[in-house]
Amino acid sequence: MKIQTAVAHFDEPLYLESGRILESYDLKYETYGELNAAKDNTIVVFHALTGSHHAAGRYEGDTKVGWWDPLIGDGKIVDTTHYFVICVNVLGSCFGSTSPMSINPKTKEALRLKFPVLTISDMVRSQMNLFKRLGIESAHAIIGGSMGGMQALCMAVEFPSFVKRAILLATTYATGPWAIAFNKLAMEGIKNDPRFHDGNYDPNDFEEEGLLSFAIGRMAGHISFLSPHSMNKKFGRNYVETDGLYELFGRFQVEKYMEYNGHSFAKRFDPLSYLYIIKAMNIFDATRNYDSLEDSLKFIKAKLTLIAFQGDCLFMPEEMETIKTTMENMGRGDRVDYACIDSHYGHDAFLVEYDKFDFYIKKALEAKV
Amino acid sequence: MKIQTAVAHFDEPLYLESGRILESYDLKYETYGELNAAKDNTIVVFHALTGSHHAAGRYEGDTKVGWWDPLIGDGKIVDTTHYFVICVNVLGSCFGSTSPMSINPKTKEALRLKFPVLTISDMVRSQMNLFKRLGIESAHAIIGGSMGGMQALCMAVEFPSFVKRAILLATTYATGPWAIAFNKLAMEGIKNDPRFHDGNYDPNDFEEEGLLSFAIGRMAGHISFLSPHSMNKKFGRNYVETDGLYELFGRFQVEKYMEYNGHSFAKRFDPLSYLYIIKAMNIFDATRNYDSLEDSLKFIKAKLTLIAFQGDCLFMPEEMETIKTTMENMGRGDRVDYACIDSHYGHDAFLVEYDKFDFYIKKALEAKV
Repeated sequence: MKIQTAVAHFDEPLYLESGRILESYDLKYETYGELNAAKDNTIVVFHALTGSHHAAGRYEGDTKVGWWDPLIGDGKIVDTTHYFVICVNVLGSCFGSTSPMSINPKTKEALRLKFPVLTISDMVRSQMNLFKRLGIESAHAIIGGSMGGMQALCMAVEFPSFVKRAILLATTYATGPWAIAFNKLAMEGIKNDPRFHDGNYDPNDFEEEGLLSFAIGRMAGHISFLSPHSMNKKFGRNYVETDGLYELFGRFQVEKYMEYNGHSFAKRFDPLSYLYIIKAMNIFDATRNYDSLEDSLKFIKAKLTLIAFQGDCLFMPEEMETIKTTMENMGRGDRVDYACIDSHYGHDAFLVEYDKFDFYIKKALEAKV
Repeated sequence: MKIQTAVAHFDEPLYLESGRILESYDLKYETYGELNAAKDNTIVVFHALTGSHHAAGRYEGDTKVGWWDPLIGDGKIVDTTHYFVICVNVLGSCFGSTSPMSINPKTKEALRLKFPVLTISDMVRSQMNLFKRLGIESAHAIIGGSMGGMQALCMAVEFPSFVKRAILLATTYATGPWAIAFNKLAMEGIKNDPRFHDGNYDPNDFEEEGLLSFAIGRMAGHISFLSPHSMNKKFGRNYVETDGLYELFGRFQVEKYMEYNGHSFAKRFDPLSYLYIIKAMNIFDATRNYDSLEDSLKFIKAKLTLIAFQGDCLFMPEEMETIKTTMENMGRGDRVDYACIDSHYGHDAFLVEYDKFDFYIKKALEAKV
């Protein structure tokens, strides 16, 4: 599989949904496979909150593969011998695209909290500019889970002629208060950490130990990615260590899991990027500029495939089902497929239980449109 | 209704489950109604994590009533013209019973982190000493929700001849990893707050503004007390304020709710008490000193009434159903009543939707045993 990583610089303004303007910006992206002569074999993959453009393959010297590697590659479900796959690091993220810590060319200083609030729509429009530059006029399919699914839905509504097939996993059409509440813990954690200094931190300070309160906020996220059932299955009441005599004083496995994931994340992810991305998720509402969900969905030309997970406590199956029933009520039931996967992995399932849903992705990619 | 508040001092050691000893201790408690001559009309009410002995009635000058006032009083479901109701502030709590901030008579200093880890069983045994002192040899009924239900279950198992009827609401027989995970956020929040000073804080420092990270931990608790459904109903995606032009920059109602509840709580509750009480909840496991749940439940003589709430995301209905089915499998199905209340209030339901479950409490109190 041919992997290419690149940065595209755009020296033209991006008009943001908020009314503000990003004068210029970079997008870091990765591609797998090759664009064919007709330029009609593109599959756009959108990453989630903490993901990056590195969706598949392994970099030299790395032990880990990209975040959706089991699905993307030569001979895999998203077959890179046929398709040209592209994944763009979203605006605001800290893996190479323009973010709050990017240097403002005018002031030579990082933008930090002067960085504008972004929306999912802003992220999507910036990516469209990249596809245009690459000469891609339409995508065979676009795929995303969680925040990636929000981008997919948004692109299907706002760029209907670009999108032939849209596959959404573990996502919603409008972020609910439960998800906003979990994000709130991270926001408060970051904001109140004494080392955050109202955004004027020195990132080098975090190399050895991330912001402690950011880590707590991320631990909260890790609760929301699981579910009571998945936690029972994964951890139960198991102790990781006791003091020998009395397990009363021991530490639970679930506590160790949270500590590890919270602290390691706080070391590797920029807190300002996190603030801006969860803000974009919180304010995502596919109905915002429309009278209703129906009024929004009616713009979609793509064949929609919705994959929900039974145990998802962050974006409940009911939310994706609402997209399906709204399409049906509009007399467009033939343009939507919905599957609710029986899973105990909670929201994380779209990154774990590939064998339970890859069939639906295969079917969606092969669907006549 | 006659309300009396008192403190009982015990100058005798309490042998704790951990092996440690509390040389002496105080218990603050409140009673409603009057103990009859036969001393057989007592109803013990157990409070939850952040509750107190003040379960009912209104103190002079107060605007708020006790935490279960709609149920306890003259002519109410727990009728204080018939019953003598008693509610004890649990050991470790900060409302008058011995706690980490109590002064060690030997050193004249607060115990702080030298305070011993307590278990639910320790709390229950200390209360039994109070009942003994009051000459109460058995209770007509014992009632508790959440951590109060843990105490009720523990008392029914460990003091079978004392308990005639045990009513448990929104609780479990062993705290699961989901609840432990939420408590972990509070533990980390408190521990990492720079003003906590490893437990050597000056409580006066918190009067104006509680520990910020403690507030974040408590906000996490408030997520667990609700549910995705109850949050949708209560808050939806409503904004509490916008900047006029763009709701993009507004604050969500759910965020305001969390801020208010988190910060006000951190001002009024002692962080060390919180640490010790959530530890006691985490390590609660009615099977710990037994071979199995059945082996534990077989000691119970009381008639059990289990009231679960459909939307409870902290202690799931399945957990209380396990108590019921275990009793049935032991051939003691006639000693247990189980009701699962249809509610969208989540775990909080036992403090809110009285009219949906008061009937079951009435029935339980009147049951022949």
